[in-house]
Amino acid sequence: MDGNGLNIAVIGYGYWGPNLVRNFFAAGANVAYIVDKDENRLAMAKRAYPTVNTTTDINHALQDTNVDAVAIALPVSFHYQIARMALLADKHVLVEKPMTKSRKSAEELIEIALRKNKVIMCDHTFLYTGAVKKIYEMISENALGQLQYFDSIRINLGLFQNDVNVIWDLAPHDISILSYITDEQPVSVSAAGLSHTKNNVENIAYLSLFYQSNFIAHINVSWVSPVKVRRTMIGGKTKTIIYDDVEPTEKVKIYDSSYTVSNDEANLFMVDYRVGDIYIPKLDTTEALKNMARSFCGAVTKSSKPESDYSIALKVVSLLEAAEKSLKDKGKEYKL
Amino acid sequence: MDGNGLNIAVIGYGYWGPNLVRNFFAAGANVAYIVDKDENRLAMAKRAYPTVNTTTDINHALQDTNVDAVAIALPVSFHYQIARMALLADKHVLVEKPMTKSRKSAEELIEIALRKNKVIMCDHTFLYTGAVKKIYEMISENALGQLQYFDSIRINLGLFQNDVNVIWDLAPHDISILSYITDEQPVSVSAAGLSHTKNNVENIAYLSLFYQSNFIAHINVSWVSPVKVRRTMIGGKTKTIIYDDVEPTEKVKIYDSSYTVSNDEANLFMVDYRVGDIYIPKLDTTEALKNMARSFCGAVTKSSKPESDYSIALKVVSLLEAAEKSLKDKGKEYKL
Amino acid sequence: MDGNGLNIAVIGYGYWGPNLVRNFFAAGANVAYIVDKDENRLAMAKRAYPTVNTTTDINHALQDTNVDAVAIALPVSFHYQIARMALLADKHVLVEKPMTKSRKSAEELIEIALRKNKVIMCDHTFLYTGAVKKIYEMISENALGQLQYFDSIRINLGLFQNDVNVIWDLAPHDISILSYITDEQPVSVSAAGLSHTKNNVENIAYLSLFYQSNFIAHINVSWVSPVKVRRTMIGGKTKTIIYDDVEPTEKVKIYDSSYTVSNDEANLFMVDYRVGDIYIPKLDTTEALKNMARSFCGAVTKSSKPESDYSIALKVVSLLEAAEKSLKDKGKEYKL
Amino acid sequence: MDGNGLNIAVIGYGYWGPNLVRNFFAAGANVAYIVDKDENRLAMAKRAYPTVNTTTDINHALQDTNVDAVAIALPVSFHYQIARMALLADKHVLVEKPMTKSRKSAEELIEIALRKNKVIMCDHTFLYTGAVKKIYEMISENALGQLQYFDSIRINLGLFQNDVNVIWDLAPHDISILSYITDEQPVSVSAAGLSHTKNNVENIAYLSLFYQSNFIAHINVSWVSPVKVRRTMIGGKTKTIIYDDVEPTEKVKIYDSSYTVSNDEANLFMVDYRVGDIYIPKLDTTEALKNMARSFCGAVTKSSKPESDYSIALKVVSLLEAAEKSLKDKGKEYKL
Repeated sequence: MDGNGLNIAVIGYGYWGPNLVRNFFAAGANVAYIVDKDENRLAMAKRAYPTVNTTTDINHALQDTNVDAVAIALPVSFHYQIARMALLADKHVLVEKPMTKSRKSAEELIEIALRKNKVIMCDHTFLYTGAVKKIYEMISENALGQLQYFDSIRINLGLFQNDVNVIWDLAPHDISILSYITDEQPVSVSAAGLSHTKNNVENIAYLSLFYQSNFIAHINVSWVSPVKVRRTMIGGKTKTIIYDDVEPTEKVKIYDSSYTVSNDEANLFMVDYRVGDIYIPKLDTTEALKNMARSFCGAVTKSSKPESDYSIALKVVSLLEAAEKSLKDKGKEYKL
Repeated sequence: MDGNGLNIAVIGYGYWGPNLVRNFFAAGANVAYIVDKDENRLAMAKRAYPTVNTTTDINHALQDTNVDAVAIALPVSFHYQIARMALLADKHVLVEKPMTKSRKSAEELIEIALRKNKVIMCDHTFLYTGAVKKIYEMISENALGQLQYFDSIRINLGLFQNDVNVIWDLAPHDISILSYITDEQPVSVSAAGLSHTKNNVENIAYLSLFYQSNFIAHINVSWVSPVKVRRTMIGGKTKTIIYDDVEPTEKVKIYDSSYTVSNDEANLFMVDYRVGDIYIPKLDTTEALKNMARSFCGAVTKSSKPESDYSIALKVVSLLEAAEKSLKDKGKEYKL
Repeated sequence: MDGNGLNIAVIGYGYWGPNLVRNFFAAGANVAYIVDKDENRLAMAKRAYPTVNTTTDINHALQDTNVDAVAIALPVSFHYQIARMALLADKHVLVEKPMTKSRKSAEELIEIALRKNKVIMCDHTFLYTGAVKKIYEMISENALGQLQYFDSIRINLGLFQNDVNVIWDLAPHDISILSYITDEQPVSVSAAGLSHTKNNVENIAYLSLFYQSNFIAHINVSWVSPVKVRRTMIGGKTKTIIYDDVEPTEKVKIYDSSYTVSNDEANLFMVDYRVGDIYIPKLDTTEALKNMARSFCGAVTKSSKPESDYSIALKVVSLLEAAEKSLKDKGKEYKL
Repeated sequence: MDGNGLNIAVIGYGYWGPNLVRNFFAAGANVAYIVDKDENRLAMAKRAYPTVNTTTDINHALQDTNVDAVAIALPVSFHYQIARMALLADKHVLVEKPMTKSRKSAEELIEIALRKNKVIMCDHTFLYTGAVKKIYEMISENALGQLQYFDSIRINLGLFQNDVNVIWDLAPHDISILSYITDEQPVSVSAAGLSHTKNNVENIAYLSLFYQSNFIAHINVSWVSPVKVRRTMIGGKTKTIIYDDVEPTEKVKIYDSSYTVSNDEANLFMVDYRVGDIYIPKLDTTEALKNMARSFCGAVTKSSKPESDYSIALKVVSLLEAAEKSLKDKGKEYKL
């Protein structure tokens, strides 16, 4: 397996850390260290994985020359600092999404990684799902015709975060998917949003992404919806994909998109909303995080290019930065 | 019945006209004239209603002093001119939505109606549905707590229109509902959209409405979705309504909205997306258009104030006008 | 059109009669008489169709030699008597489902019709839906592989009838579909059911149909379900159809049925419930009753064999009769 | 916790065994032994739980006087023999469902347990779900009115088993729920089913349960449905519960059941399928198996009566036995 012989330190054993540890083991790698400031979390880690070194001091892991790579599962505010330390200590780096809180800091991390010939990768897990792989495949084969729009809703009753707003928390999923499946880059962004809490951290936001071509993207994110919705429409000239991630087995549905543009008043009567057959492909059901762990390991051991390439992570951060400016400016267009 | 003794001329017997005729009769009124430029449509009308006068010349109806009111079911571009003629001929006027293509012309119609003491009303049918009546009732009783957001999706595979874009076609439904259920008025709007056709008429659009208070509204409209979605979320501090108009019997669902704002990292683990019970009220199932017809008749015969008051129609047109400017300006905020 | 020149008398203008009248006109036939014992219903008919003769006396229609055919939309108890009168008066006959209340009376009607060279047909409307036509087509092409089971649920909150139980009311739909799409005939039936009302008319019932081959059918009908369900599974060796008639646009879904029969204990772990792609074909959306009306007219004017052939109607009645006996006998198998 | 100080041996570490081990630990008990004939499974157990004794010889566990209780997660054919050995070795016993393959053997186990003053309990996990607890609670409070029917569908694409048919595999869930929520016992059963495999083990079956009162139960089970359905309707005179276990958050919906019994032909027009409001209660989301483990531990340590009392297990086995006879006899009623 791609992870064979690789020693990894996982920094942060909160919500996501245990998932990373489990999947690195599943990918054949060895988790050599688990680092967390909370002794209770470390004790829990030790019970589950008696052979792993646990420590509250990240330097123990960074100074151990047997450690090849570091995986960072901390709040966003720590990403830049810890990733930089790890790169400077000659470790490959995996960091949770979003990579950093600013374009500048993301660029700096990438620059260091390139200079030191180390992997820097961001865990955009959705790129490793069977659904997104199928969508990518279909678009690569031009099965949808020319792309016309991308429209995503990602809302639920979430815990409000303190260090980032809902855009930074949820939109990275949609932006990374969008960057992955299309080659064209947005030229500008308009965003609106609102905070209902004292700290003024937005919990509802809407992003519109403008492109050079006849394509538009829209992302609707919220922490205050009592129902969980994860629904993305990708409209092409001939086919439209509806990707519903909440649906257990029928996540990706492919519809005909054909419609009639009529100048004739008599044709104003539209009765049939469905033009053609619908097709629901079977998807690969491997756990996405396992694929992600393999992809990172492969990038380290075989220099393979991961689906979640750093260039996507950088696009995500750049777009989030511009979107936040527009949001403060009530929808004013910001160039990228 | 409120329509008793009322003589109405219906102008336009295309898609919507027959529905108006049927429901005016159901409301107890008499449809005295059906006017259409197409003789085939008139012949069809005559077969269904042998006693009605059919004519291609609107003046026959306007000059008949027995005619009390005129209902206009024509493309938007004709609304202002025909409604003005009817008012000047001393008829009460019902016009399909949106009332006109500009704020200025809507204001002029209202001014003439007020001066001549005639009813001018716009057929915002949704205000007469059991669902919207229930939502209005609940908000009036403060059952949702302070309103925080309104988020609506209204998309389907529709016929592209030539004289107005998708905002003018579909957003009036959402804006009229919004105006009806809340007292607060938006202060500005940001809109984005795109046309995929040669005539540059937008077929996809997104509107964000800003308010003085901690409230935001968002409307997503499209003519190019292969599935029909009509789903509106109305979030209050204590309860959230999800109104799904495609659902046959469970259109309005009421959820608890409570959530926790936590500063504690340990609480970042969120597992349960549902906080409380869900409640699905039984709705009045009377045909909305029948209620609308009654409401117009009552406004004429009893001077009662209709749910779809002209002030709502004016707000709709004003907002559409500002939204269209913002749309051309890629999301720039336009004051109202 | 197939109905051209045909004069039809519609007997019964209650719930279903108006639909028949409208669709006979749509099929090009002329409805010459509407017969009902209720003067109010006749007045209503006259307003809608001023040219039609209305009468409370069926003999007016039967004695008019211009009348070619009679369509009977009365409660089941009247079917046999009225259909017999019409046949003896040399009229072609369409009768609502089920044809009669006993196998014997159905056989007698068919015998008279054959002797007099008249059409006798029962309105099993579902055979004329786009959904059933597509299912028939697929089975004809052996697209499902060898049929293994048919499992149907047809429940809702219905009005309790006095002259027939829920089996006679709802199961004819399923049995007629089953008879239409398969060639094999059931050899016996077992039924269970219950009445919750004083008149002991069953409002819940379950039917199991046994076949010579490795096929089984099951029908679940109820008048006391607060939700409406119309869902039929048709399982073949390679494909399974799920036909959900409540679904507005995706009524027919086709699944892979493949599964593994394993003797190996290690294989007892089953994780993936979906084996292959799902396909949702576009269906013909012509109103089924219009197709039925055309089919009857074609049978009269062109001697074409209707989808809803009398042999299907006879099978339905025979099976209902046996099922009712089994029901009284708590599931005991009754041969057909 | 109820499990404190309790030493348990888990027999069988295949599909279900690991879940039992995890949940016994969660309930505070100590899993002292894991027994399996397969060394690979034991090695897997050892990696996950280094402190547990693993062995292929069940006698090691039975002879250890520190072991208080034995949990049996083996194929049904082994239940009787192993449970009997364990009871005779003075251990409390938990056995997976169904308890045994015959009424006689279940009675014998219960008799031994009573004589030796040991707990014998069957893991009917569904009795410990938030959904069934809520349903039980509502029925206890007579919130549904007099019960009229129970109608359950439990179908999916499952692995065919060799030692028991689909009735023994899936129906225990429904029968245990039914036994738990109602006091009345069925008096007889009618069953139909079919095998599509060479070994003649039925993979589709339908059960009708008859009662003294005006109540009926029906259970539809299948291993050959390409979609997973777990949907139970429980109809009372005033309210009806629809329990959909596949639904992630809205598993239990409560509907009004009121309907009209009319003798009046004019009332044959039924348009509104919904009579009242719908209510979706919030459910306890604790893992059912954890509750079950606690319940068993409490029965051992505190002599508390478990929800899944042995009397329910016995009713399940008795009914399955009668149902299988009826199935072989094509629906003939078998008394219980």
